[in-house]
Amino acid sequence: MKLRFELLHTDGAARSARLHLPHGTVDTPAFMPVGTYGTVKAMAPEELEALGAQIVLGNTFHLALRPGAEIVALHKHGLHGFMGWQRPILTDSGGFQVFSLAKLRKISEQGVRFRSPVDGAEVNMSPEDSMDVQRALQSDIAMAFDDCTAYPAGEAQARESMERSMRWAARGHAHYYRDAPPGHLFGIVQGGMHLTLRTASLGALSAHDWQGLAIGGLAVGEPEEERLRVLEHTLPLMPADRPRYLMGVGYPQDIVAAVACGVDMFDCVMPTRHARNGHLFTSEGVINIRNAQYQRDTGPLDPACACSTCRTYSRSYLRHLDRCNEILGVRLGTVHNLHFYLELMRHIRAAIAAGSFAALAARIMAIPQRIAPPVA
Amino acid sequence: MKLRFELLHTDGAARSARLHLPHGTVDTPAFMPVGTYGTVKAMAPEELEALGAQIVLGNTFHLALRPGAEIVALHKHGLHGFMGWQRPILTDSGGFQVFSLAKLRKISEQGVRFRSPVDGAEVNMSPEDSMDVQRALQSDIAMAFDDCTAYPAGEAQARESMERSMRWAARGHAHYYRDAPPGHLFGIVQGGMHLTLRTASLGALSAHDWQGLAIGGLAVGEPEEERLRVLEHTLPLMPADRPRYLMGVGYPQDIVAAVACGVDMFDCVMPTRHARNGHLFTSEGVINIRNAQYQRDTGPLDPACACSTCRTYSRSYLRHLDRCNEILGVRLGTVHNLHFYLELMRHIRAAIAAGSFAALAARIMAIPQRIAPPVA
Repeated sequence: MKLRFELLHTDGAARSARLHLPHGTVDTPAFMPVGTYGTVKAMAPEELEALGAQIVLGNTFHLALRPGAEIVALHKHGLHGFMGWQRPILTDSGGFQVFSLAKLRKISEQGVRFRSPVDGAEVNMSPEDSMDVQRALQSDIAMAFDDCTAYPAGEAQARESMERSMRWAARGHAHYYRDAPPGHLFGIVQGGMHLTLRTASLGALSAHDWQGLAIGGLAVGEPEEERLRVLEHTLPLMPADRPRYLMGVGYPQDIVAAVACGVDMFDCVMPTRHARNGHLFTSEGVINIRNAQYQRDTGPLDPACACSTCRTYSRSYLRHLDRCNEILGVRLGTVHNLHFYLELMRHIRAAIAAGSFAALAARIMAIPQRIAPPVA
Repeated sequence: MKLRFELLHTDGAARSARLHLPHGTVDTPAFMPVGTYGTVKAMAPEELEALGAQIVLGNTFHLALRPGAEIVALHKHGLHGFMGWQRPILTDSGGFQVFSLAKLRKISEQGVRFRSPVDGAEVNMSPEDSMDVQRALQSDIAMAFDDCTAYPAGEAQARESMERSMRWAARGHAHYYRDAPPGHLFGIVQGGMHLTLRTASLGALSAHDWQGLAIGGLAVGEPEEERLRVLEHTLPLMPADRPRYLMGVGYPQDIVAAVACGVDMFDCVMPTRHARNGHLFTSEGVINIRNAQYQRDTGPLDPACACSTCRTYSRSYLRHLDRCNEILGVRLGTVHNLHFYLELMRHIRAAIAAGSFAALAARIMAIPQRIAPPVA
């Protein structure tokens, strides 16, 4: 089954398109809120729909541990029915989480053995296991199981890791398509910060018919310039007639910079996680609602924002909820931050259609949205 | 200003009525969800409206400490504007919380001095202070500041405490009505488990024009039979043309038993707090969603329930959310439990109108809803 990728507009290397997936249509460039355990933290599905989210991401690693793929599979349409979300879902493969979250990780050619961070039990995950889980979850887009390269990594280490990922990708592809799959499979380009390895990875992936490609191994601690260097090298080498997905990125500025290179899809925990820490994105920059300066501030969080949080509540109330650890504070902040990201994507798509993406990008770049210097 | 109390139906001592309050109408018997810190925990105001809540309770003690009455008062309509709830609000007086939550409490004729559980600061609260806070909050119904009698208490101790409450009530009444108040003031009957003291308390209260009366000093650890004995003695002595409010009660059975005595209003943290602990009320009894038996249960929480949680999600999903400490689990459980309570009140009102309250009461009494034996 071929994923229908309907290119709408281009503006420089930036482009807008529509993805036609089993559970609905996704306008790109798209941002996917992250629903690790079968819920975008603090949100109900109908709120995500009202915010205009067209696709969410589910984490294969987490769902395989809790509640287990076989439990999700008892529900109609798998993860869709389990979490009450009828629109498209992309599942990652678990590769990144094994790399970053699991203890006593042991990598072999067969796959990965690790201790569950939930209960310490020994768990094995191979490329085939990851495909089995993702098929059971019935995601619209499944991702190849990869060996995520650490940062920094020398050429030899990055090559070994990338080549393993490519062998695992081939095994996963065969396994995912062994009979009628529930969705589409994307490959993942690896190679660390080494451009020749990125080229080699794309060459290896071209042996199989991926319905889209992702750039993996970024947003792992590298400086912004390094990431841009890899993107500027890699994007032009990726098939133009299929979606391109940059995994785990990022700040609004990072998204704009990547769209300028031709990226179509993004996911990041930033809007939801920041909201839980009181960091809220506004049209004038990120603010920490915990600050004492908001105690008596009866104005809206962001006067320029049309979300329900900004239309209904004061900064004073939001600060109060945060201070009292009230769940509603997390909810209202999450609604706002997700609205901010999804609205950013709507603006990006409109600007690409109007041929004014460069002007929008310049405006976004000028707003201070980073709350901490990038990890060096 | 007189509170308009529109009596609709009686069925034995049970009765249904309408309260016409500054911010809207409340059908009684009514249940008031508790919004301690200016939010009914985990709920948004529009969800409470959708559930049919017509009035919520705010805690004067908590709001006076965080964020402070003067911060709430910066908002239009006080607590209504602060929390985005346009319907009626009842505020308690803080008396019960001083009694049960504050440390190093020192009671004098003037009022109470205590250490704030938030930051340890010394705080004074007099009957006049409580009225000032409640006026600033602009609640539709304010409560007299009382000295809540401990359980158990001998006759002398209960008398001293009750008489202090009556003197404080008189001072509070004068202070609340010193100029145009934002709402109505209710008195609180005290007297512990001593029926003669309850009668004396009602006598003392009759010196002032209260727009409604509450029964205080119950739900403080006494056995169910004791509470019923006090209710059966006290209710017939209370004015029939004004609302009667039983503070802090309780289980569905307790509510039904109190309605049978003629109580009109209730508040309790039970539905919201139980939801946060995974205890969910159903038409067949309370269940603990954490139990392993629900792991593979794809059926609805309560097949007889029409709430959005039961219409959308499986027991398996609810258990999973609880296990992963996901906020959505608390939200969905709270929606369900509040629906259960508010639906119970709708059934009670309909049964009173139909003259079939006794049959409904018998049915409710047969459902095992207590999760723990009453405190002896």
